[in-house]
Amino acid sequence: MDEKGRRELILQNILTRTSDRMFDPTKVVGEDDLQTLLQAAMAAPTAVNRQPWQFVVVTNRQLLDQLAAALPYCHMADQATAAIVVCGDKNRFLEGEDDVLWVQDCSAASENILLASHALGLGSVWTCVYPHTDRMASVSGILQLPEDFVPFNVIPIGYVSKAHTPINKWNPAAITYRT
Amino acid sequence: MDEKGRRELILQNILTRTSDRMFDPTKVVGEDDLQTLLQAAMAAPTAVNRQPWQFVVVTNRQLLDQLAAALPYCHMADQATAAIVVCGDKNRFLEGEDDVLWVQDCSAASENILLASHALGLGSVWTCVYPHTDRMASVSGILQLPEDFVPFNVIPIGYVSKAHTPINKWNPAAITYRT
Repeated sequence: MDEKGRRELILQNILTRTSDRMFDPTKVVGEDDLQTLLQAAMAAPTAVNRQPWQFVVVTNRQLLDQLAAALPYCHMADQATAAIVVCGDKNRFLEGEDDVLWVQDCSAASENILLASHALGLGSVWTCVYPHTDRMASVSGILQLPEDFVPFNVIPIGYVSKAHTPINKWNPAAITYRT
Repeated sequence: MDEKGRRELILQNILTRTSDRMFDPTKVVGEDDLQTLLQAAMAAPTAVNRQPWQFVVVTNRQLLDQLAAALPYCHMADQATAAIVVCGDKNRFLEGEDDVLWVQDCSAASENILLASHALGLGSVWTCVYPHTDRMASVSGILQLPEDFVPFNVIPIGYVSKAHTPINKWNPAAITYRT
């Protein structure tokens, strides 16, 4: 493959990623694939290398079902065979104003999980937990998370049972030039 | 190329991305490449499809130099031939608690810009602006941004003059299982 082909493959993976909400509950996500997703997550940029994140890999059927039932936009977890719950790690937060930087780092890590899932032929969807205190309490309770984990999102992962075309969000009005 | 090779290419692009801070000031980033980066940015996931972002493409030499001088960790902008300034768009923020979601969306879009840059053979680095009010004021002032743009970060982009190995951030202690 030439350089142009290589670039096109990588860019298409970014452009064709979608939020997948329909999974085949009989097709189990492999452990190797989950490891790959975690590698991708931890390759994200992180302010002053604080790595203020924790990743909770959920493959327990009952816990996935409980997350699906407890969270308002996470119903598809009852068909996913895995989820990665991205959490902030309070032990690694910066002081004062910079507290909010953990959200930026966890978001970049989450996007890497979504893109790596798509590359692996898996579907995934970012379901928001933080800053909703009710959802955060539900996740902490169901997964029995340590005090220093701040639940940030739940990313159900599985083999897609019904694929769909990505929304076209291209919007020239969102671009300004300073040339 | 077989499916395994395709996956490996995409994953390696995620794993080998680094924060590049040394650019060749004589090699200009092409307009087509900048368009590709913007496409990648707008392909990011966004809560309830609000797309609460604006992208300011800066290629003006004086403005890049002014950003480099004004921001504490953005000195490399004086060698970069372009920068994308990711901004929140106040007109598209959600009400109340959900305000913070624009940070998550802009972070995912930023990560897409970094990954697409790396795919194109360009270097880039996420330099933090939000939530530092002094940096936000500097960026708004230098670029004469509209009131409804909230400067989120500055991503200098260029051809790398000195490549380096990515930091290995793999940390098994950041993984918890619920099987």
